[in-house]
Amino acid sequence: MFVASMKIRPGTDADRDAIWNIFHEVAADGDTYALDPNISREDALAYWFARGTHTYVAEHPAIGIAGTYILRPNQSGGGAHVANAGFMVSASARGLGIGRAMAEHCLSEARRLGFRAMQFNYVISTNTAAIRLWEDLGFEIVGTLPSAFRHPDKGYVDVHVMYRSLLD
Amino acid sequence: MFVASMKIRPGTDADRDAIWNIFHEVAADGDTYALDPNISREDALAYWFARGTHTYVAEHPAIGIAGTYILRPNQSGGGAHVANAGFMVSASARGLGIGRAMAEHCLSEARRLGFRAMQFNYVISTNTAAIRLWEDLGFEIVGTLPSAFRHPDKGYVDVHVMYRSLLD
Repeated sequence: MFVASMKIRPGTDADRDAIWNIFHEVAADGDTYALDPNISREDALAYWFARGTHTYVAEHPAIGIAGTYILRPNQSGGGAHVANAGFMVSASARGLGIGRAMAEHCLSEARRLGFRAMQFNYVISTNTAAIRLWEDLGFEIVGTLPSAFRHPDKGYVDVHVMYRSLLD
Repeated sequence: MFVASMKIRPGTDADRDAIWNIFHEVAADGDTYALDPNISREDALAYWFARGTHTYVAEHPAIGIAGTYILRPNQSGGGAHVANAGFMVSASARGLGIGRAMAEHCLSEARRLGFRAMQFNYVISTNTAAIRLWEDLGFEIVGTLPSAFRHPDKGYVDVHVMYRSLLD
């Protein structure tokens, strides 16, 4: 019901404040993304709205922008048929299925845009909620980078590369 | 002997023409990197000299700049202790050990800069010379991305993620 009333749509300039609030929160936490926790608003928005990147927001009538995601080619040239995506949900809106709703929307958008596969380059092994969600949505761990992430509490932990075909 | 007489040093603005010549050649070939074959000089040099990227050239007294490489953190924040690197050798200078000399220089530089590991995100499976070199230098294939690269002659081929610790 919550998710059904939520609207996922392309992000616009009017969403920049809301996106920065979520981005800043996620970067400052520092346990799910390899981002500079002190990244500037300018750099963050330049990354999230980069050339060739599709930017979306999840908007709920009651709480406003609750999440945002990006979809883009993971590589250029001969690698441009594989999509990459990144998802962020506001801390105050977690556990409500917003991540899953955005992920399903993202897979649909990626197919619509003609991508043949989707890859996550950097899924931190301690982020078990994300790994469960991606596996549930058909992604597989295709590689593991030993001790590639320095977790703020847990020290050096492994990172997974996850992948799924979009041809089936 | 050839390699011994070669100098590997940081790239400067004076090297931009030579770097672009090599970059353009490698991008246009389109079989070893996932780069736009029509990438502009401006975008190519912005990438090769990006903020936070260390740029080097291999200079031979007889043939000039024969190769170039970059060394940088593979990720920001909690992932910044893992290095990433990219190597390009001029077509006219291949088979002379320039790639290996740059790779050994790169590993040494990465240790000097305090990186704990090095990762190659995108080693195309048909690039067997590169894979042999990286394995010889202690890298392992830690992941394989199925059909992630569209080779100009061979169609969709796998891509490897390669990794090595720098702590030993």
